Amino acid sequence: MGSERAVAVVGGGVIGLSVAWAVAEAGYPVRLVDPAPARGASWLAGGMLAPVTESWPGEEHVLELGSSSLARWPDFAARLTAAGGDPGLRLEGTLAVALDSADVGTLDVLAEFLRGLGREAVRCSGRELRALEPGIGPGVRSGLHVPGDLAVDNRALLTALHTACRRSGVEFITATARAVHPNAVVLADESTVDCAAVVVTAGAWSGHLHPALAPLVRPVKGEILRLHTRPGTLPVPTRTIRAHVESRPVYLVPRLDGELVLGATQLEVGFDESVTAGAVRDLLRDAERVLPGIAEYALVETAAGLRSGSPDNLPLIGLLEPGLLVATGHHRNGLLLAPVTAGAVVSLLREEELPAAVRAADPARFLGRDA
Amino acid sequence: MGSERAVAVVGGGVIGLSVAWAVAEAGYPVRLVDPAPARGASWLAGGMLAPVTESWPGEEHVLELGSSSLARWPDFAARLTAAGGDPGLRLEGTLAVALDSADVGTLDVLAEFLRGLGREAVRCSGRELRALEPGIGPGVRSGLHVPGDLAVDNRALLTALHTACRRSGVEFITATARAVHPNAVVLADESTVDCAAVVVTAGAWSGHLHPALAPLVRPVKGEILRLHTRPGTLPVPTRTIRAHVESRPVYLVPRLDGELVLGATQLEVGFDESVTAGAVRDLLRDAERVLPGIAEYALVETAAGLRSGSPDNLPLIGLLEPGLLVATGHHRNGLLLAPVTAGAVVSLLREEELPAAVRAADPARFLGRDA
Repeated sequence: MGSERAVAVVGGGVIGLSVAWAVAEAGYPVRLVDPAPARGASWLAGGMLAPVTESWPGEEHVLELGSSSLARWPDFAARLTAAGGDPGLRLEGTLAVALDSADVGTLDVLAEFLRGLGREAVRCSGRELRALEPGIGPGVRSGLHVPGDLAVDNRALLTALHTACRRSGVEFITATARAVHPNAVVLADESTVDCAAVVVTAGAWSGHLHPALAPLVRPVKGEILRLHTRPGTLPVPTRTIRAHVESRPVYLVPRLDGELVLGATQLEVGFDESVTAGAVRDLLRDAERVLPGIAEYALVETAAGLRSGSPDNLPLIGLLEPGLLVATGHHRNGLLLAPVTAGAVVSLLREEELPAAVRAADPARFLGRDA
Repeated sequence: MGSERAVAVVGGGVIGLSVAWAVAEAGYPVRLVDPAPARGASWLAGGMLAPVTESWPGEEHVLELGSSSLARWPDFAARLTAAGGDPGLRLEGTLAVALDSADVGTLDVLAEFLRGLGREAVRCSGRELRALEPGIGPGVRSGLHVPGDLAVDNRALLTALHTACRRSGVEFITATARAVHPNAVVLADESTVDCAAVVVTAGAWSGHLHPALAPLVRPVKGEILRLHTRPGTLPVPTRTIRAHVESRPVYLVPRLDGELVLGATQLEVGFDESVTAGAVRDLLRDAERVLPGIAEYALVETAAGLRSGSPDNLPLIGLLEPGLLVATGHHRNGLLLAPVTAGAVVSLLREEELPAAVRAADPARFLGRDA
């Protein structure tokens, strides 16, 4: 394969795989560098595609970008089903619920913000919530029904993307990258992958690859649990349920096979991937307040992943320098933002103009030059 | 290998391996049948060798048998270290501690019982406990210091026993047994292992192998966690700590490498080996009351094993019929009772008389005939 048009994608999480697939489908030869593709933080994620319940006053840009990506998701999922496998898109919507009066106040702020933007979000009493999801506990006081916030099976998604990439001719290089330059990726063994352009999609590790990214991307640890129904237990809910429990956020994302993903802590503790006893205790206790029946579920997995935080919760999608692109800093929104990010990278390679929502994510905003 | 003197041992947990090793050392050819030796409930155990803090009025026979086995442990460990590897015997002793007033009452009963038997157990205030183990939390009100109750690294023990067995010529048959007869073990594929005598050491599964055992042995599920220190956390305690926390028993067994084993639930739910969310939540919450610093420890393993319960908490050690021996029903005391059980099986094969403490475990007590 010649390197004159080749694109090297560094990092094989949901962003890297989505970018690699889209770039390959656009006709470029693609080499994806990752020591363990289709794993990492994307593998551990809950799977929420939830820009509305994730939003907050002051982060309108994040909501805009997320909404524009969510709009692409049904088509993305359909194309992926044909190309690599069904990613398990769930259309049942999301409930955001509140426990104590401070939690209700948090929901009030979110509801008011969404009303001002004309977003669909229906306020529900505890009784109305339990009519929608009978497993919701008696301590849940009120909520917000957001039918447009969806979910995906992140592991089915990664597997499907991995397959789609291979079928599209993406070359997988099972190695760790050490540094990136506009026309080459330097691997840990000092060999190089030559190419016409590089796309950094290495999530929390992106800052290790290029000095300009080091101050912009930081790891945000998230501990996440996977539970599963057992014989005789209540079924998983139909919808994603997000809650504030005495000001601690928790989410519960159901899968059709009876799995329930329960997350997630948000800790700024560097590159630490240990699961602490205290985090597991907090997540289980808080989730039980929301869905008491999960006490009888099996706890089948405890894990911690590292999200890639950016200074303003918007990702970094754009050019670092000619021939060196970046698509990282997606924080809690990597799965949601995969379609819009992949499309943006193809547009950047083609030197096409980007949509306004994506231009807001240009890393130039931190690099002291105009976008 | 001829079968005219061969002994088949069915089950390769701590009892089966200890029996196989002792029988092989006594000069018999030994065949050990287990689909996965050196695993099972023994692999998941905490490692307490603690007959005194485990005792309770009315279970004097259990205490007698446990004490007689504990007396053999230092020699057993020394011989095993030479023959297979160091099992990690810890001599630092055990603290039994109490949280609420009912828990203190439970300790009072135990202390009074031990005093009547002349057993060594020193009552301690919360302050005295914290002088011994500075990590003990402020909610711990009083305790009992039992220097004679020890602990072992159960995984090092199993590995050492496995090695000692191989070196002693034990033949491992990696298969599941379906039934036992005096001169043969029937495997799942209907083939048979011929032998002169069979010893059933299959723990909770023993009842599946012979109809006389079916009503006598039941699975008692135990969920158990493994934690580990992290940089900056408090060290593990020096001693084993057992506690009653609002009437729920919990134990914390330290290892020299910074591991802390935290257990265990006791659930009569049949052959269910799932770890429930509620059990993990309870164990972590209760253990944190005892040692608050563990909240920052890593949670490295959650698992459930099946102990073999007997009707009276004494094991079943003896003849079921000529040529068919049993050594099962050890419940929470398999590691502790391994030396005395292995010695008893050798004595039974040689038709020697058993010590009184072991005769109390004769299965004849349930079989409607004299021992």
